[in-house]
Order: sequence, then C-alpha cells, then structure tokens
Amino acid sequence: MPDEKSFHMTPDEFRRHGHAVVDWIADYQSRVESFPVVSKVKPGEIRASLPANPPAQGESFEALLKDVEQLILPGVTHWQSPNFFAYFPCNASGPGILGDLLSSGLGVQGMLWSTSPACTELETHVMDWLVRMLGLPEKFLSSSTGGGVIQDTASSAAVCALLAGRERATNYASNRKGCNGRLVAYASAQAHSSLEKAAMIAGIGSENLRLIEVDENFAMRPDALARQIEADKQAGLTPCFVCATVGTTSSNAMDPIAAIGEICRGHKLWLHVDAAMSGTAMLCPEFRHLQEGVELADSYNFNPHKWMFTNFDCNCFWVADRRALIQTLSILPEYLRNQATESGAVIDYRDWHIQLGRRFRSLKLWFVIRHYGVEGLRHHIREHVRLAQQFAGWVQNDNRFELAAPAPLNLVCFRHKGGDTLNQTIMDRINRSGDLFLTHTKLNGKLTLRLCVGQTNTKARHVENAWKRIRDEANELQKIA
Amino acid sequence: MPDEKSFHMTPDEFRRHGHAVVDWIADYQSRVESFPVVSKVKPGEIRASLPANPPAQGESFEALLKDVEQLILPGVTHWQSPNFFAYFPCNASGPGILGDLLSSGLGVQGMLWSTSPACTELETHVMDWLVRMLGLPEKFLSSSTGGGVIQDTASSAAVCALLAGRERATNYASNRKGCNGRLVAYASAQAHSSLEKAAMIAGIGSENLRLIEVDENFAMRPDALARQIEADKQAGLTPCFVCATVGTTSSNAMDPIAAIGEICRGHKLWLHVDAAMSGTAMLCPEFRHLQEGVELADSYNFNPHKWMFTNFDCNCFWVADRRALIQTLSILPEYLRNQATESGAVIDYRDWHIQLGRRFRSLKLWFVIRHYGVEGLRHHIREHVRLAQQFAGWVQNDNRFELAAPAPLNLVCFRHKGGDTLNQTIMDRINRSGDLFLTHTKLNGKLTLRLCVGQTNTKARHVENAWKRIRDEANELQKIA
Repeated sequence: MPDEKSFHMTPDEFRRHGHAVVDWIADYQSRVESFPVVSKVKPGEIRASLPANPPAQGESFEALLKDVEQLILPGVTHWQSPNFFAYFPCNASGPGILGDLLSSGLGVQGMLWSTSPACTELETHVMDWLVRMLGLPEKFLSSSTGGGVIQDTASSAAVCALLAGRERATNYASNRKGCNGRLVAYASAQAHSSLEKAAMIAGIGSENLRLIEVDENFAMRPDALARQIEADKQAGLTPCFVCATVGTTSSNAMDPIAAIGEICRGHKLWLHVDAAMSGTAMLCPEFRHLQEGVELADSYNFNPHKWMFTNFDCNCFWVADRRALIQTLSILPEYLRNQATESGAVIDYRDWHIQLGRRFRSLKLWFVIRHYGVEGLRHHIREHVRLAQQFAGWVQNDNRFELAAPAPLNLVCFRHKGGDTLNQTIMDRINRSGDLFLTHTKLNGKLTLRLCVGQTNTKARHVENAWKRIRDEANELQKIA
Repeated sequence: MPDEKSFHMTPDEFRRHGHAVVDWIADYQSRVESFPVVSKVKPGEIRASLPANPPAQGESFEALLKDVEQLILPGVTHWQSPNFFAYFPCNASGPGILGDLLSSGLGVQGMLWSTSPACTELETHVMDWLVRMLGLPEKFLSSSTGGGVIQDTASSAAVCALLAGRERATNYASNRKGCNGRLVAYASAQAHSSLEKAAMIAGIGSENLRLIEVDENFAMRPDALARQIEADKQAGLTPCFVCATVGTTSSNAMDPIAAIGEICRGHKLWLHVDAAMSGTAMLCPEFRHLQEGVELADSYNFNPHKWMFTNFDCNCFWVADRRALIQTLSILPEYLRNQATESGAVIDYRDWHIQLGRRFRSLKLWFVIRHYGVEGLRHHIREHVRLAQQFAGWVQNDNRFELAAPAPLNLVCFRHKGGDTLNQTIMDRINRSGDLFLTHTKLNGKLTLRLCVGQTNTKARHVENAWKRIRDEANELQKIA
C-alpha cells in the first residue's frame, strides 16, 4: 500500500529521542557556567560550518543532536547563564519549558474558543489569577469589563494598545478610512523604542509620537505632558494615547502613573502602562507603590518571559474595556464563523491581537505559577532585588564609581568616574572574557553600565564575582594608564 | 545563607519530569484517535474545574501532569488527530517538537546577531535552503538583494509586507508623518481576512483595501485589478500594495501571479504573494506551475506550521529587497547598539518584523528538513494531494454531491446538492460525533463543506472513513426527510 510508506517519527522513536533531548537540556543546565557567556564566534562562522544544500535524504536524530552540540552551541550567547546581567533578562525554568513542551505536543491552534476551548479558558483563568497576584485593578478581570490575553512581546502589546487608543479617539473611523496625519501619541523620552516602532506601524508617524521630557530620575514630567497635550489640541491635532513606563529599559525609571493617569482622564486619552520587566516585582506587595495610580490605566502589560521564569515568548496584556480592543481588531470571515462565537458566550482571542493563529501559551504560565506558588515566586524576586541593592551599595562605597540613576529594583546603572572610554573598555574586556555579560546605555549623555539581576539561577556568588571582575578590570586599567 | 533557599526545579528534577512529559506526549500520539476530534465541552466548563485562586505554595509536578490529563484534555480539539480535516491544518512532527524543545532549553533571545549569532545565522541559512527547495527566485537569497526571516504567522508577515509597500510608495514618509488617508491596497475578494486586518493596523483603512472581483474559479481577475488601479490613480489616490494568493483559505483558489505581477511592475506596486498553506506543495516541482510568475514578487510567505510538519508558530517570509523592509522597521536605541551591528556585516532580525524579542525558531525547521530530507517531505505532500484528489473523485462520482471549486492540491470544497440546511446538518452531525472535523465556507452564496488533507498522520483509511461518514449522514438525512 503506497500510503503506508512513512518518514514520520513514530511515538516510540519520539519517546527515545525526546528523552535524549531532555537529558541534553538537563546537562546543559548543569554545565552552563562552563561556557563563555557571550559567544566568541565571528560573523559568518556558524554558516560556514553548515552544508550549502539541504539533505536529499533524511538523517538520523543522533546526527542532529551532535550538530547542536558541535556547530550551534559555540554560536550561542547564554541567556540562561547565571552570569548573564545584560539587557533585561529572558529567564526560563523547568516548569516553564515543560509546559511549553506540552503545548508543542498537543499542537492546538487556539484562534477561536471553539478550536480548543481549554486553550482559551485556561488563558483567561491564569490572566485573572495574575490580576490578583500583581495587585492590578478589578476592571482588568474577565468577570468585569476587561480581560487579559497572552501576546508574544511587549512590542506587539504596545501596537494593540496604540491601535485601540487610535480607534477610540476617532470613533473607530481610522480603521475604515485610514489615519489622517493628525493623530498624536505620547511617551517619555526614555520609553522603549517599541513605542516609536508602534507609531510607525499604526500609521501615526514617529514625528507624531511626542517624547516628553524627563526629570532628574529619568521619569516622565507630568507638567510637560500636560503642556504638550494642550499645545497639540490648540494646533488642531488629535491626542489619542499615552504610554507610561513602570521601569524603563534604559535605567528602570518609574513614570508617575497617578499624575499621568489624571491627565489622561481629563483629556480622555488611552493610558497604556508598560511594566515589561518590573511588572514581575508587583508579585511582592512592598513594591506596588511603584505603580501607584495603575487603576487609571486603560491597558497594562508585563513579560513573564523576562523575570518570571516563563520561557520566551509570554507577554501578559490587559485592557479595562475589552469591547474597545475587540472592536479595533475584530474581523469575521465566513470560514471562521461558528455557533460558540455567535452565542457571545465565549472569548475568541484572535480579536485581541495582530495574529490570527495562536499556540497554547497559558500552559507554561500555569505550570510556572503552580510549581513555584506565589510564595516561591516572591522569594526569588525578593532575592534578586536584594542582590541588586547589595551591588548598588558596593558601587556607592567605592569612590572610583558612581550610581548613574536610582536603582529601585533589580537594575543597577553605574559608571566608573574615569569617563566614557574607560567604561567602554571595562565592559568590552569583561564581555570578551566570557566571565559575565553586561550591556550599556547613555544617561545624561554619558556612557553608563547596566547590571540587571534576573536570570533564574543568579545567586549571591555570581553578583559578588561580577563586582570583583569589574573592580579588577578597573584596577588593571589604572595600572596601564 | 538566605540566597541558597530555592524553589527552582533542579537539572535532575528536570530530567525526571521531562521524561514523564515526553512519555505523556508519545502516549498522546498513540491514542489521539481515541478522542473525539472536536471537544465536547460547553462554554465555561473548563474554567469551572479550576481553582479560583492561584496556589500560595508550590505543587508537585505530578499534580500538574495529572491535571493536564483530567482537566485540560477534555477541552482540547485535536488538531493533531489524523481525522482533523478542518480549516487549514496546523500539523506537527517529532523532529519539529524536539527542535522547539531545544529552543526552549537554550532560551536564547535572538533580537540581534550579537545576542546569539547561531540563532540568526541558522535562520538565514535554512531560509536560503528553502528558496531552492521551493523554486523561489534567486533574489530572495541572503546572498542576493533579499533574504528570509521566520515570523510567527502569515498575518504578521502581511502587516510587514504592507508596511514596506506603504513606505516605498511614500518615500518612507508615512513612517515619520503618519498616513494621509489616500493610500490604497489591493487583494482579491477571496483573500484572507488578515489582509483587511493589516490595512486597519497599518493606518490605511479597510475601505482603502480594494477587494478585486474573482473569476469563476475564485481567482483574482487581473483586468479588474488593472482597472481599479487606474481609477484610483485618476482619483488622485496612491496605490501601494497588492496581495496575490497561492491557495486562498476559502477554496484554495490560485491567483494568476504572472499577470498580476506585470501590472504591479507597470505601476511600481509592492507585490506580496501569500502561499500560507499551498507554499509547502512547491517542494514538489510538478506543483510549481501554480505559482508561475513568482519571480515578480517583492515578498512571499508560507507557513511550515500548516502543512510542513513544523509545529506552530513558524511562518517563512522573504523579501526581494531587504533594504526596503529594514528601512521600514528599523529603530536603534542606544541600549541595543553593538559593534557587530555597526560593522554592517550581520543581520539583526529585530528590524525584519514587528516584535523586538525573538526565539530560536529555526532549530525546529532545521530539524524537520534534516529528519525528513527533501525526499521525505515530498513523499508525504504528494500522498496528501493524492488522497485529496481521490476524495474529489468520489464526490464527482456520487450524483448527490458536487465539487464547489477546483481542487488543485489538498483542499476539496464540495456540497450536497440538497441545499444549505442539509449541508449544515451533515457537518454539524459529523463534528458532534467526534469522528472527524470538517469546516465550511460560502462560495457563490452557497454553504460549502471543506475537507483539507494535511495532518501529519492522515492516511488513506482516514480519508476513506471521512467519505463514508459523510455519505452515511446524507443517507440518514434522506431517510428522515
């Protein structure tokens, strides 16, 4: 029978190869500190090791796994190393990885409630759990006027929030007629670059995203925001959206949400709160003062894939008024019509984001929350903050160094007082050594080093060693100078 | 030492629990046919089985896996059942799932070349392989003027293509100043709903997406397209983008790419070719005539997560001129600056899509291609097409039924001649039985059943049984009538 010939992996082969992959990952976790954190390969080096053409015949699974070890691993920068202090983290954990594996294994596509009810309902349920866990307003609950959805990244969530704000401000006319070049949006001069990208994507234009000046702590100045909105209205423009950040990427600055929210309410502007990394800290009641005023937000998002042990991608996005979001993004072709949708009794998440198709992302988030419990999550977040604060203290006590910005949580911005070149050299030497990975920003025009404590397995000894390595490099460079 | 307390899963625990999850998935694969394909739960039923509050303390992994089996599984519609013939497939395979597991385990975030060189270079390499494998034009190669990138879905790819067309038509001014309400885009009246959504997102407006009439085979009429473009230009509007579809979602209609491409070239419009499902068929040279003229495309995309055994999400998107795409989507804040980017010697994929962060998606695609080899992939695609053609023959030979559209590949659109109500009843009864899953569309105003052969493990007996079940229901309903 011609149809019985098969190149597929059988369940038994899957079992055997799957165990091998799990073992490889467990071993990787055990030896991750033995690799240089930053890959040392040169541009083109990985590609040069790969065959120019795809194989005509299939290859053994063992050959694939061997190539991962020999050809791919040298080109990996180890985001899961406890010595990774760069950017914001993108951490992971066993329960997250295994929840995601189950999602791959079930292979459901949850675009509609009816295409896999559990995919939608578990997501709604976990998003409701998180509203309570993070001290977010009741209106974000699915049982209220709002609701939450898992998106891929904060960039996509920002696009959706901006679109909803755009549509609400134009009475849903931009969706039909297109933008008119007169819409204006607002974010702080320190907001994430994804806001500029969102303004470009949404047809608003980067020049119509006003970058509001910040105060000495790099937080948005509400008075400057209010003045700019007034000026734009005077000029006949249509303000539609404000993004306030709980923890900017550059320096972890905290915009004053309450003051910004009052201004938005006065002008009926959509307020989006971006807490991409720092949102995880809100698991701990003692940090929630940093998002005071969040009850004024129309939308909010944070990334469990940054600091909450849930492997990429997992962005949690809530809105206070789900009708506004759905009206902005809904389309209903005949081939997606079904009774459940038409009954109005269910959520169809394809109307909550850009994509149509979607995977069963809530499994990994559910696994993480249940594995750790609220207590376990809080423990590790507090520990990361404690270690970052300790590091900030060491910086302050060494008179060659200075803090470059307040360090409210787990990001420390600091610099050697010797100037940009010296700081760049310290960072380059450390990163090239492979011992740890730091990145930089510019604050007040000065090169600033950033150390972010958030990788799942980062402990006291890793932070201690980071500080030792930084001081060693500074000592070495002083000798040379 | 306070920092040594840990709630994390250790590598040894990961090994043990990981084996259990792999075994669970292998068992699921073995017993998938024992479940009703369409979940029988009612709205709210899954949520009602879940605790209202998250656990304060962590739970055992065994408890999680038990809940997947007992609480989640009843709410799953089994996209991986060989009796799944609905929508377009979203198939998967062992090598795809395990490649994705490695991606989760490595946990790299490949926004920049420098944040994990292997993540970028393997992706570029595999995308170049696929250009040859699918008979796509040389200009899509990274070694030429173009290049490929893995996106999540065809919806996101459509947004990116539309944005690039928008920017090229406005000399990159819309990005800065916003849209002006005068841009126009084109797709067939049978194009995917994501095009309408993309026009809304991009600030062009759904009313400015012209839905061009189709011929008797549901393919776009080039003459109608040409007339509409002329009319829009006469009206002082700015045409910027055309989407042509290789295999529409509704009926698998094939737009005439060559004729559409010539029109686009004449008017300097961006031509995007959407081959979301049918692109996989181009692995087989005998089907490539269906995309004749593809060398005129500015961008092209297909979804290995639909029909090429690569689990969701995996969309392959190519452009002929990478500079146009990058100029459309690029942003460069200080905290992402690095030497590799500034050298110009590397690709930074964050400038090729909406998101900033990205996972190591090419691993699963690489695993699939190497596991099957080109030969293995072709074998299974040909077999799916053969089975669909056989089904179409059965429909034609039963005088109670008719084909509703040509069936060039693996989708068969058909109906009982007894009218909409009868077809709806046949479909509802079959889907409720759990034996298989069909969905519908409307063609020429008539309800039409769709049977798509594309699930990884669908074999002759599954298609034979589908036809038997459809005839049985028709017989039964005739008796009642």
